[in-house]
Amino acid sequence: MAPLAEADGLVWNAGSQDGFPDPLPENIQWVQLKSAGIQPWITSGHVEPSRTWISAVGAYSQDVAEHAVGLLLALLRQFPHCARSNSWQKTQIWDAMRSLRGRQVAIIGCGSIGRAMIPMLDAFGAQVLAINRSGRPVTGAVQTQTSEHLNEVLTAADDMVVAGASTDQTRYLIGAEQFRALGAQGNIVNIARGDLVDPEALEQALTDKVIAAAGLDVTEPEPLPDDHPLWHLPNVLITPHVANPQQNMEPNFAAFAAANIQRITRGEAPQGLIDLTRKY
Amino acid sequence: MAPLAEADGLVWNAGSQDGFPDPLPENIQWVQLKSAGIQPWITSGHVEPSRTWISAVGAYSQDVAEHAVGLLLALLRQFPHCARSNSWQKTQIWDAMRSLRGRQVAIIGCGSIGRAMIPMLDAFGAQVLAINRSGRPVTGAVQTQTSEHLNEVLTAADDMVVAGASTDQTRYLIGAEQFRALGAQGNIVNIARGDLVDPEALEQALTDKVIAAAGLDVTEPEPLPDDHPLWHLPNVLITPHVANPQQNMEPNFAAFAAANIQRITRGEAPQGLIDLTRKY
Repeated sequence: MAPLAEADGLVWNAGSQDGFPDPLPENIQWVQLKSAGIQPWITSGHVEPSRTWISAVGAYSQDVAEHAVGLLLALLRQFPHCARSNSWQKTQIWDAMRSLRGRQVAIIGCGSIGRAMIPMLDAFGAQVLAINRSGRPVTGAVQTQTSEHLNEVLTAADDMVVAGASTDQTRYLIGAEQFRALGAQGNIVNIARGDLVDPEALEQALTDKVIAAAGLDVTEPEPLPDDHPLWHLPNVLITPHVANPQQNMEPNFAAFAAANIQRITRGEAPQGLIDLTRKY
Repeated sequence: MAPLAEADGLVWNAGSQDGFPDPLPENIQWVQLKSAGIQPWITSGHVEPSRTWISAVGAYSQDVAEHAVGLLLALLRQFPHCARSNSWQKTQIWDAMRSLRGRQVAIIGCGSIGRAMIPMLDAFGAQVLAINRSGRPVTGAVQTQTSEHLNEVLTAADDMVVAGASTDQTRYLIGAEQFRALGAQGNIVNIARGDLVDPEALEQALTDKVIAAAGLDVTEPEPLPDDHPLWHLPNVLITPHVANPQQNMEPNFAAFAAANIQRITRGEAPQGLIDLTRKY
């Protein structure tokens, strides 16, 4: 630990940008941010190419992956219907019940969260179809494609999990066409950022049963206003951006930042290094 | 396939006892039943020691294990609260959110369903404390005990899953004392039979927050009547005995019965052989 004026780097232990040093002293060569999604830091202009900026991508992946698998199981297992029921409606629930076993799950933006999901899905006997930027094979996925093949992958998949970064390129990546490709038995889980999914197309697909159901930890807009129709659709489960449990955040981020400081000290690249040409 | 009067064995492809041949022809040496829980068949007197009786224990284990893990995740991840909410209540939900990672899960009656749960729980970084009749170590569990040590195990555990057979000995095995041992942060999941848990003690423990929450696929009585208080407790998620999805039942049972016929033909013991001294 050193005073800001003498330190080589800064670990910014807050999600908010309030009070962030402006200007940053020249001696600060790297900044470790606490958030995995760093769009607001780029928009505000803090993140610029004269130093090394590091996101917390990967710090919370295990916890967020767990939430994503939990949401998918909840949809397949009809938990939203059951939670809202006051009587023993066995016939209709039993008929709608599905196993995760044997399903093919497309992970759109298969980075650290997606990779953390693979052993979990594998334990249930589900298979992963990965979509990533490079198309470089993701270990454990039965196939890996770029988003050029998004619609083909969704046609083959049973369900989709949106797990990619929010960028200009991924905004509204999932829309009406993608829901039609997924189909009426398919579920969508979004634990990434709300703006990867076109919100009007989502509401329409759920209302018209173009897809089966949605489990959303993130929404567009966010927070979702009280009068929003999504709150009242029977085939929607919304969790209020809580996939990374609050009580785990400090220990997860502390371990992640400590490991990165060691990497930097050894002259290695930190995990979560922000690529300013790609903006994530 | 042979007529009943000439067959060596009978595969009874129905859950109900209605229309079961009475008396059974002498030539029938073995009967494969479709249900994993065979208490009603013992009560009715059909199952008697002059022939071999075989339950479907193990046929549906993978699907039921998946449901059990799904229910546990749903409770930890606050899905019942979220499903019943019409607004973005981040502060309280985020505070209550828990990860399965790092938790110790007691499996009470760790037979085929419990064993199927172990790799699933392991993929999330949770550990299993097994309770079984013999105390013989269950592969993959960090410890295995007999039910003599039930309260110690529950004291050490974070959560419990009830997965044992319903017998005279296991009736109301879980009661007020066991809920106190589990504690206020602990969740109970029951995917076995309702009568393993004392229903009044369960309702009391959930109302008084002696334990955190319950995920119940089975209840006592069953079906749970419409006016039952459990329907209205915020920390309860009830699924109407549907852990084994209807659409998977036929293929699962067909594969199981076929494998047992092969075992019998080879002179081996079938899976699910009913021990008439233990009655399961």
